[in-house]
Amino acid sequence: MEPIAVVTVLALLQVFSFAFLVGKQRVKHGVKAPAISGEAEFERAFRVHQNSVEQLVIFIPALWLFGYYVHSLIGAGIGLIFIVARFVYRGSYLNNPESRTAGFGIGALSMMVLLLGGLVGAVVSWL
Amino acid sequence: MEPIAVVTVLALLQVFSFAFLVGKQRVKHGVKAPAISGEAEFERAFRVHQNSVEQLVIFIPALWLFGYYVHSLIGAGIGLIFIVARFVYRGSYLNNPESRTAGFGIGALSMMVLLLGGLVGAVVSWL
Amino acid sequence: MEPIAVVTVLALLQVFSFAFLVGKQRVKHGVKAPAISGEAEFERAFRVHQNSVEQLVIFIPALWLFGYYVHSLIGAGIGLIFIVARFVYRGSYLNNPESRTAGFGIGALSMMVLLLGGLVGAVVSWL
Repeated sequence: MEPIAVVTVLALLQVFSFAFLVGKQRVKHGVKAPAISGEAEFERAFRVHQNSVEQLVIFIPALWLFGYYVHSLIGAGIGLIFIVARFVYRGSYLNNPESRTAGFGIGALSMMVLLLGGLVGAVVSWL
Repeated sequence: MEPIAVVTVLALLQVFSFAFLVGKQRVKHGVKAPAISGEAEFERAFRVHQNSVEQLVIFIPALWLFGYYVHSLIGAGIGLIFIVARFVYRGSYLNNPESRTAGFGIGALSMMVLLLGGLVGAVVSWL
Repeated sequence: MEPIAVVTVLALLQVFSFAFLVGKQRVKHGVKAPAISGEAEFERAFRVHQNSVEQLVIFIPALWLFGYYVHSLIGAGIGLIFIVARFVYRGSYLNNPESRTAGFGIGALSMMVLLLGGLVGAVVSWL
Protein backbone atom coordinates (compact mmCIF):
# COMPACT_ATOMS: atom_id res chain seq x y z
CA MET A 1 0.00 0.00 0.00
CA GLU A 2 3.04 2.33 -0.15
CA PRO A 3 1.93 4.06 -3.38
CA ILE A 4 -1.41 4.81 -1.71
CA ALA A 5 0.40 6.14 1.37
CA VAL A 6 2.55 8.48 -0.75
CA VAL A 7 -0.46 9.83 -2.69
CA THR A 8 -2.25 10.31 0.64
CA VAL A 9 0.57 12.52 1.93
CA LEU A 10 0.56 14.53 -1.32
CA ALA A 11 -3.20 15.13 -1.07
CA LEU A 12 -2.89 16.16 2.60
CA LEU A 13 -0.02 18.54 1.83
CA GLN A 14 -2.09 20.05 -0.98
CA VAL A 15 -5.02 20.86 1.31
CA PHE A 16 -2.63 22.12 3.98
CA SER A 17 -1.07 24.48 1.42
CA PHE A 18 -4.55 25.73 0.46
CA ALA A 19 -5.21 26.50 4.15
CA PHE A 20 -1.90 28.36 4.32
CA LEU A 21 -2.93 30.50 1.35
CA VAL A 22 -6.18 31.46 3.11
CA GLY A 23 -4.07 32.72 6.00
CA LYS A 24 -1.99 34.80 3.58
CA GLN A 25 -5.17 36.33 2.10
CA ARG A 26 -6.36 37.15 5.64
CA VAL A 27 -3.22 39.20 6.21
CA LYS A 28 -3.19 40.77 2.72
CA HIS A 29 -6.78 42.02 2.91
CA GLY A 30 -6.97 42.61 6.66
CA VAL A 31 -9.75 40.04 7.20
CA LYS A 32 -9.37 39.49 10.93
CA ALA A 33 -10.48 36.18 12.49
CA PRO A 34 -13.20 35.09 13.09
CA ALA A 35 -14.51 36.93 9.98
CA ILE A 36 -14.94 34.72 6.91
CA SER A 37 -16.18 37.34 4.48
CA GLY A 38 -14.44 40.32 2.93
CA GLU A 39 -12.45 40.99 -0.23
CA ALA A 40 -13.44 38.69 -3.14
CA GLU A 41 -9.88 37.34 -3.42
CA PHE A 42 -10.03 36.22 0.22
CA GLU A 43 -13.49 34.67 -0.12
CA ARG A 44 -12.39 32.68 -3.18
CA ALA A 45 -9.32 31.30 -1.43
CA PHE A 46 -11.48 30.52 1.61
CA ARG A 47 -14.08 28.61 -0.41
CA VAL A 48 -11.42 26.73 -2.41
CA HIS A 49 -9.99 25.47 0.87
CA GLN A 50 -13.41 24.62 2.35
CA ASN A 51 -14.42 22.71 -0.76
CA SER A 52 -11.07 20.89 -0.77
CA VAL A 53 -11.62 19.71 2.81
CA GLU A 54 -15.10 18.49 1.85
CA GLN A 55 -13.62 16.53 -1.05
CA LEU A 56 -10.65 15.24 0.94
CA VAL A 57 -12.81 13.50 3.55
CA ILE A 58 -14.35 11.41 0.77
CA PHE A 59 -11.17 11.03 -1.29
CA ILE A 60 -8.88 9.54 1.40
CA PRO A 61 -11.13 6.59 2.41
CA ALA A 62 -12.04 6.00 -1.27
CA LEU A 63 -8.35 5.91 -2.20
CA TRP A 64 -7.54 3.33 0.47
CA LEU A 65 -10.55 1.12 -0.29
CA PHE A 66 -9.65 1.08 -3.99
CA GLY A 67 -5.98 0.50 -3.21
CA TYR A 68 -6.75 -2.38 -0.87
CA TYR A 69 -9.64 -4.14 -2.66
CA VAL A 70 -8.78 -3.37 -6.30
CA HIS A 71 -5.21 -2.33 -7.12
CA SER A 72 -2.68 -0.25 -5.24
CA LEU A 73 -0.72 1.28 -8.16
CA ILE A 74 -3.80 1.98 -10.30
CA GLY A 75 -5.46 3.58 -7.27
CA ALA A 76 -2.40 5.77 -6.71
CA GLY A 77 -2.49 6.81 -10.38
CA ILE A 78 -6.16 7.82 -10.20
CA GLY A 79 -5.34 9.63 -6.94
CA LEU A 80 -2.69 11.68 -8.76
CA ILE A 81 -5.29 12.67 -11.39
CA PHE A 82 -7.51 13.84 -8.51
CA ILE A 83 -4.71 15.96 -7.05
CA VAL A 84 -3.91 17.57 -10.41
CA ALA A 85 -7.62 18.28 -10.96
CA ARG A 86 -7.79 20.01 -7.58
CA PHE A 87 -4.91 22.30 -8.58
CA VAL A 88 -6.81 23.10 -11.80
CA TYR A 89 -9.94 23.73 -9.69
CA ARG A 90 -8.05 26.11 -7.44
CA GLY A 91 -6.42 28.03 -10.29
CA SER A 92 -9.66 28.51 -12.23
CA TYR A 93 -11.73 29.33 -9.11
CA LEU A 94 -9.31 32.07 -8.01
CA ASN A 95 -9.38 33.52 -11.51
CA ASN A 96 -13.13 33.27 -12.00
CA PRO A 97 -15.41 31.12 -9.78
CA GLU A 98 -17.74 30.40 -12.73
CA SER A 99 -14.89 28.58 -14.51
CA ARG A 100 -14.36 26.07 -11.69
CA THR A 101 -16.53 23.34 -13.22
CA ALA A 102 -13.88 21.48 -15.26
CA GLY A 103 -11.38 21.09 -12.42
CA PHE A 104 -14.13 20.19 -10.00
CA GLY A 105 -15.69 17.69 -12.39
CA ILE A 106 -12.50 15.79 -13.19
CA GLY A 107 -11.68 15.63 -9.48
CA ALA A 108 -15.16 14.40 -8.55
CA LEU A 109 -15.14 11.86 -11.39
CA SER A 110 -11.79 10.32 -10.38
CA MET A 111 -13.02 10.23 -6.77
CA MET A 112 -16.18 8.44 -7.89
CA VAL A 113 -14.09 5.85 -9.78
CA LEU A 114 -12.11 5.17 -6.59
CA LEU A 115 -15.26 5.02 -4.48
CA LEU A 116 -17.32 2.75 -6.71
CA GLY A 117 -14.29 0.60 -7.57
CA GLY A 118 -13.65 0.18 -3.84
CA LEU A 119 -17.31 -0.74 -3.28
CA VAL A 120 -17.27 -3.40 -6.01
CA GLY A 121 -13.94 -4.75 -4.75
CA ALA A 122 -15.18 -4.96 -1.15
CA VAL A 123 -18.45 -6.66 -2.16
CA VAL A 124 -16.62 -9.19 -4.38
CA SER A 125 -14.16 -9.91 -1.55
CA TRP A 126 -17.08 -10.34 0.89
CA LEU A 127 -19.00 -12.85 -1.25
CA MET B 1 -13.74 -5.82 7.44
CA GLU B 2 -15.81 -5.92 4.23
CA PRO B 3 -19.08 -4.92 5.99
CA ILE B 4 -17.27 -1.88 7.38
CA ALA B 5 -15.91 -1.05 3.93
CA VAL B 6 -19.40 -1.21 2.37
CA VAL B 7 -20.93 1.02 5.09
CA THR B 8 -18.02 3.43 4.61
CA VAL B 9 -18.82 3.79 0.90
CA LEU B 10 -22.51 4.33 1.69
CA ALA B 11 -21.68 7.09 4.19
CA LEU B 12 -19.31 8.76 1.72
CA LEU B 13 -21.89 8.60 -1.08
CA GLN B 14 -24.46 10.14 1.28
CA VAL B 15 -22.27 13.15 2.05
CA PHE B 16 -21.36 13.47 -1.64
CA SER B 17 -25.06 13.54 -2.51
CA PHE B 18 -25.64 16.27 0.11
CA ALA B 19 -22.87 18.33 -1.54
CA PHE B 20 -24.51 17.80 -4.92
CA LEU B 21 -27.79 19.14 -3.55
CA VAL B 22 -26.04 22.29 -2.32
CA GLY B 23 -24.88 22.85 -5.90
CA LYS B 24 -28.45 22.45 -7.14
CA GLN B 25 -29.66 25.05 -4.60
CA ARG B 26 -26.91 27.42 -5.78
CA VAL B 27 -28.30 27.24 -9.31
CA LYS B 28 -31.96 27.39 -8.25
CA HIS B 29 -31.55 30.50 -6.10
CA GLY B 30 -28.76 32.16 -8.08
CA VAL B 31 -26.30 32.04 -5.17
CA LYS B 32 -23.05 32.51 -7.08
CA ALA B 33 -19.77 31.15 -5.65
CA PRO B 34 -18.04 32.15 -3.41
CA ALA B 35 -21.21 33.38 -1.61
CA ILE B 36 -22.45 31.08 1.15
CA SER B 37 -25.49 33.05 2.23
CA GLY B 38 -28.75 33.79 0.45
CA GLU B 39 -32.16 32.16 0.21
CA ALA B 40 -33.10 30.17 3.36
CA GLU B 41 -33.50 26.96 1.34
CA PHE B 42 -29.92 27.29 0.09
CA GLU B 43 -28.54 28.08 3.55
CA ARG B 44 -30.25 25.05 5.05
CA ALA B 45 -28.87 22.70 2.41
CA PHE B 46 -25.45 24.31 2.87
CA ARG B 47 -25.46 23.83 6.64
CA VAL B 48 -26.76 20.25 6.37
CA HIS B 49 -23.79 19.43 4.17
CA GLN B 50 -21.29 21.25 6.40
CA ASN B 51 -22.57 19.50 9.50
CA SER B 52 -22.47 16.16 7.70
CA VAL B 53 -18.80 16.67 6.81
CA GLU B 54 -18.08 17.55 10.46
CA GLN B 55 -19.79 14.33 11.58
CA LEU B 56 -18.22 12.19 8.84
CA VAL B 57 -14.66 12.96 9.92
CA ILE B 58 -15.45 11.48 13.35
CA PHE B 59 -17.72 8.70 12.08
CA ILE B 60 -15.32 7.02 9.61
CA PRO B 61 -12.40 6.47 12.05
CA ALA B 62 -14.86 5.47 14.82
CA LEU B 63 -16.51 2.93 12.49
CA TRP B 64 -13.18 1.30 11.60
CA LEU B 65 -11.89 1.22 15.20
CA PHE B 66 -15.11 -0.44 16.36
CA GLY B 67 -15.09 -2.83 13.40
CA TYR B 68 -11.49 -3.84 14.03
CA TYR B 69 -11.30 -3.95 17.84
CA VAL B 70 -14.89 -4.98 18.68
CA HIS B 71 -17.01 -6.57 15.93
CA SER B 72 -17.19 -5.95 12.20
CA LEU B 73 -20.85 -6.84 11.53
CA ILE B 74 -22.21 -5.12 14.66
CA GLY B 75 -20.16 -2.05 13.77
CA ALA B 76 -21.60 -2.05 10.25
CA GLY B 77 -25.12 -2.30 11.72
CA ILE B 78 -24.57 0.69 14.01
CA GLY B 79 -23.07 2.50 11.03
CA LEU B 80 -26.29 1.93 9.07
CA ILE B 81 -28.30 3.45 11.94
CA PHE B 82 -26.00 6.49 11.73
CA ILE B 83 -26.62 6.84 7.99
CA VAL B 84 -30.40 6.56 8.38
CA ALA B 85 -30.30 9.14 11.21
CA ARG B 86 -28.40 11.53 8.93
CA PHE B 87 -31.13 11.23 6.29
CA VAL B 88 -33.70 12.01 9.02
CA TYR B 89 -31.52 14.97 10.11
CA ARG B 90 -31.39 16.29 6.55
CA GLY B 91 -35.13 15.93 5.95
CA SER B 92 -36.17 17.62 9.18
CA TYR B 93 -33.52 20.39 8.87
CA LEU B 94 -34.66 21.33 5.36
CA ASN B 95 -38.25 21.42 6.56
CA ASN B 96 -37.59 23.32 9.78
CA PRO B 97 -34.08 23.72 11.30
CA GLU B 98 -35.51 23.69 14.84
CA SER B 99 -36.74 20.11 14.30
CA ARG B 100 -33.26 18.75 13.52
CA THR B 101 -32.54 17.55 17.07
CA ALA B 102 -33.89 13.98 16.82
CA GLY B 103 -32.00 13.05 13.65
CA PHE B 104 -28.87 14.73 14.92
CA GLY B 105 -29.12 13.08 18.33
CA ILE B 106 -29.58 9.52 17.08
CA GLY B 107 -26.69 10.01 14.66
CA ALA B 108 -24.41 11.43 17.37
CA LEU B 109 -25.40 8.69 19.80
CA SER B 110 -24.62 5.84 17.39
CA MET B 111 -21.32 7.56 16.56
CA MET B 112 -20.52 7.79 20.27
CA VAL B 113 -21.21 4.05 20.68
CA LEU B 114 -18.75 3.31 17.85
CA LEU B 115 -16.16 5.69 19.27
CA LEU B 116 -16.29 4.57 22.90
CA GLY B 117 -16.62 0.90 21.89
CA GLY B 118 -13.52 1.31 19.71
CA LEU B 119 -11.67 2.96 22.60
CA VAL B 120 -12.51 0.15 25.04
CA GLY B 121 -11.62 -2.47 22.42
CA ALA B 122 -8.26 -0.83 21.66
CA VAL B 123 -7.37 -0.45 25.36
CA VAL B 124 -8.32 -4.09 26.11
CA SER B 125 -6.25 -5.25 23.13
CA TRP B 126 -3.32 -3.12 24.31
CA LEU B 127 -3.26 -4.50 27.88
CA MET C 1 -1.21 0.23 16.62
CA GLU C 2 -3.23 0.45 19.87
CA PRO C 3 -1.50 3.65 21.08
CA ILE C 4 -2.40 5.26 17.73
CA ALA C 5 -6.00 4.05 18.09
CA VAL C 6 -6.31 5.55 21.58
CA VAL C 7 -4.87 8.93 20.49
CA THR C 8 -7.26 8.85 17.50
CA VAL C 9 -10.26 8.50 19.82
CA LEU C 10 -8.97 11.34 22.02
CA ALA C 11 -8.59 13.65 19.00
CA LEU C 12 -12.08 12.75 17.74
CA LEU C 13 -13.61 13.34 21.16
CA GLN C 14 -11.85 16.71 21.33
CA VAL C 15 -13.35 17.89 18.02
CA PHE C 16 -16.74 16.50 19.03
CA SER C 17 -16.58 18.50 22.27
CA PHE C 18 -15.71 21.65 20.28
CA ALA C 19 -18.83 21.05 18.14
CA PHE C 20 -20.89 20.64 21.29
CA LEU C 21 -19.65 24.01 22.58
CA VAL C 22 -20.74 25.68 19.33
CA GLY C 23 -24.23 24.34 19.99
CA LYS C 24 -24.14 25.81 23.49
CA GLN C 25 -23.14 29.20 22.08
CA ARG C 26 -26.03 28.99 19.59
CA VAL C 27 -28.46 28.64 22.48
CA LYS C 28 -26.75 31.24 24.70
CA HIS C 29 -26.73 33.97 22.03
CA GLY C 30 -29.90 32.96 20.21
CA VAL C 31 -28.09 32.27 16.91
CA LYS C 32 -30.70 30.12 15.21
CA ALA C 33 -29.65 27.57 12.56
CA PRO C 34 -28.77 27.95 9.70
CA ALA C 35 -27.16 31.29 10.72
CA ILE C 36 -23.39 31.13 11.23
CA SER C 37 -22.79 34.74 12.21
CA GLY C 38 -23.81 36.69 15.29
CA GLU C 39 -22.32 37.45 18.69
CA ALA C 40 -18.47 37.46 18.65
CA GLU C 41 -18.33 34.70 21.28
CA PHE C 42 -20.41 32.45 19.02
CA GLU C 43 -18.34 33.24 15.92
CA ARG C 44 -15.10 32.45 17.73
CA ALA C 45 -16.38 29.08 18.97
CA PHE C 46 -17.71 28.38 15.47
CA ARG C 47 -14.39 29.13 13.78
CA VAL C 48 -12.40 27.15 16.39
CA HIS C 49 -14.51 24.12 15.54
CA GLN C 50 -14.27 24.66 11.77
CA ASN C 51 -10.52 25.03 11.94
CA SER C 52 -10.27 21.93 14.14
CA VAL C 53 -12.16 19.88 11.56
CA GLU C 54 -9.82 21.18 8.83
CA GLN C 55 -6.81 20.12 10.90
CA LEU C 56 -8.31 16.77 11.95
CA VAL C 57 -8.73 15.55 8.38
CA ILE C 58 -4.97 15.94 7.89
CA PHE C 59 -3.97 14.83 11.40
CA ILE C 60 -5.71 11.42 11.48
CA PRO C 61 -4.17 9.98 8.27
CA ALA C 62 -0.78 11.53 9.19
CA LEU C 63 -0.93 9.92 12.64
CA TRP C 64 -1.63 6.46 11.21
CA LEU C 65 1.01 6.69 8.48
CA PHE C 66 3.63 7.72 11.04
CA GLY C 67 2.46 5.04 13.49
CA TYR C 68 2.60 2.33 10.83
CA TYR C 69 5.72 3.26 8.85
CA VAL C 70 7.84 4.89 11.59
CA HIS C 71 6.96 4.15 15.22
CA SER C 72 3.64 3.61 16.96
CA LEU C 73 4.48 4.92 20.47
CA ILE C 74 6.46 7.94 19.24
CA GLY C 75 3.61 8.75 16.84
CA ALA C 76 1.11 8.57 19.70
CA GLY C 77 3.31 10.90 21.77
CA ILE C 78 3.49 13.50 18.97
CA GLY C 79 -0.27 13.08 18.56
CA LEU C 80 -0.76 13.98 22.23
CA ILE C 81 1.29 17.15 21.71
CA PHE C 82 -1.04 18.00 18.80
CA ILE C 83 -4.11 17.53 21.00
CA VAL C 84 -2.72 19.69 23.79
CA ALA C 85 -1.79 22.39 21.26
CA ARG C 86 -5.36 22.37 19.94
CA PHE C 87 -6.67 23.00 23.47
CA VAL C 88 -4.22 25.91 23.74
CA TYR C 89 -5.41 27.15 20.33
CA ARG C 90 -9.03 27.00 21.47
CA GLY C 91 -8.39 28.77 24.77
CA SER C 92 -6.39 31.62 23.26
CA TYR C 93 -8.75 32.04 20.24
CA LEU C 94 -11.82 32.37 22.48
CA ASN C 95 -9.98 34.92 24.59
CA ASN C 96 -8.51 36.90 21.69
CA PRO C 97 -8.35 35.57 18.10
CA GLU C 98 -5.10 37.44 17.45
CA SER C 99 -3.37 35.34 20.13
CA ARG C 100 -4.16 32.03 18.43
CA THR C 101 -0.83 31.75 16.59
CA ALA C 102 1.18 29.81 19.23
CA GLY C 103 -1.40 27.05 19.74
CA PHE C 104 -2.03 26.82 16.02
CA GLY C 105 1.68 26.74 15.19
CA ILE C 106 2.63 23.99 17.65
CA GLY C 107 -0.32 21.92 16.42
CA ALA C 108 0.58 22.43 12.76
CA LEU C 109 4.25 21.68 13.44
CA SER C 110 3.57 18.37 15.20
CA MET C 111 1.16 17.46 12.39
CA MET C 112 3.88 18.23 9.84
CA VAL C 113 6.34 15.98 11.71
CA LEU C 114 3.81 13.13 11.53
CA LEU C 115 3.06 13.80 7.86
CA LEU C 116 6.65 14.09 6.62
CA GLY C 117 7.82 11.25 8.89
CA GLY C 118 5.06 9.07 7.44
CA LEU C 119 6.09 10.07 3.90
CA VAL C 120 9.75 9.18 4.49
CA GLY C 121 8.77 5.90 6.19
CA ALA C 122 6.44 4.93 3.32
CA VAL C 123 9.03 5.76 0.66
CA VAL C 124 11.79 3.83 2.50
CA SER C 125 9.44 0.85 2.89
CA TRP C 126 8.54 1.05 -0.83
CA LEU C 127 12.16 1.05 -2.07
